[in-house]
Amino acid sequence: MGNNEGISELTTGRLSVYLRCLTYLESLNQETVSSAEMAERFHLNSAQIRKDLACFGDFGTRGVGYNVGRLKEQLVRTLGIDRTRNVLIIGAGNLGMALADYKGFNENGFQIVALVDADREKIGRASRSGIPVLAYEELSSVVHQRGVDIAIIAVPTSSAQQVYDALVDTGVNAILNFAPVQIRTHDRVKLKSVDLRINLESLSFYLKGVEDGV
Amino acid sequence: MGNNEGISELTTGRLSVYLRCLTYLESLNQETVSSAEMAERFHLNSAQIRKDLACFGDFGTRGVGYNVGRLKEQLVRTLGIDRTRNVLIIGAGNLGMALADYKGFNENGFQIVALVDADREKIGRASRSGIPVLAYEELSSVVHQRGVDIAIIAVPTSSAQQVYDALVDTGVNAILNFAPVQIRTHDRVKLKSVDLRINLESLSFYLKGVEDGV
Repeated sequence: MGNNEGISELTTGRLSVYLRCLTYLESLNQETVSSAEMAERFHLNSAQIRKDLACFGDFGTRGVGYNVGRLKEQLVRTLGIDRTRNVLIIGAGNLGMALADYKGFNENGFQIVALVDADREKIGRASRSGIPVLAYEELSSVVHQRGVDIAIIAVPTSSAQQVYDALVDTGVNAILNFAPVQIRTHDRVKLKSVDLRINLESLSFYLKGVEDGV
Repeated sequence: MGNNEGISELTTGRLSVYLRCLTYLESLNQETVSSAEMAERFHLNSAQIRKDLACFGDFGTRGVGYNVGRLKEQLVRTLGIDRTRNVLIIGAGNLGMALADYKGFNENGFQIVALVDADREKIGRASRSGIPVLAYEELSSVVHQRGVDIAIIAVPTSSAQQVYDALVDTGVNAILNFAPVQIRTHDRVKLKSVDLRINLESLSFYLKGVEDGV
């Protein structure tokens, strides 16, 4: 319980980044890493690293740094990906199909159990990697029979609210939404909306700097 | 020039979030907003808001707050989306097609000029919204003739490095990569990699909190 106290969503994002770094260092057989080295190598802020990782108890040993394997294991546990989360994708259009086959969505703690779609033409097909497309009208039974933990909304903007409401009714606890629309939310269900445009705005900001000669 | 000093990439992401909030408030015809109200309404940190927006000079008037329209305009200029950025998508598979039709990628400062793909079957087709698929072998001339500012890598992991290198050769300055692979980068070109799995990890962290009764 104590681990989650005071860890905000923003921190969670950084924990994921640290986990990527540690996984990479582990692949190089590196055993320890200091916050300074992590900061320099991965362009992060060393004070922020120390602050974020302080929540986990004292993993850093002064002058030696963190044990890579142990810290990685701790982050995996903290993020709750030491168990498997079953994921269901709503919408088997281009986006849903792309997400079904997206590396990282179907490994190390996450398993995509199916896609669902209302389009009869799509039902019975499968994504390239073999994830089956089931009938949207069976949503509730799919969620229960397959033990769905996380649902992903990958439907057109116009249907996103309706799908969200239907998902809430199934009792699913966490939803990831890719439709660029403001969803009216229910308190019980955790909703995370992905705004892909932010990435383009960040690059635009960089280009403006180049243009302005900063 | 001064505007960009000291604004990190993390801050840029928050500026995009503030821009979303202000656009929403503007749609409600709200004329002013305080940092406290913005914080409460959109679940943000009011001290962070004041700190981030301090870079732009004194837009906040004590007791009145920010002028919504003026602050929004300032953020649009700072992010460099007061002009149009031409965007090219490499890869016309499910992901590329989904991105071509993604709302927000083709409006308010961004214009998707084309997709390119090496697959002869796909060349000559178009996305649902009408973005044409051109030949990958014409990459360099497409970039120059269409004045491409930002390229998006939406190809399989195995081809991502090769596409990145080819893009660098065309002289494009900014690249957004969706392939979950570590790219060996060139200094001149700004690369931003999107890691969609981080969103699932954040939801997993939430679910763990529910399970643990936090």
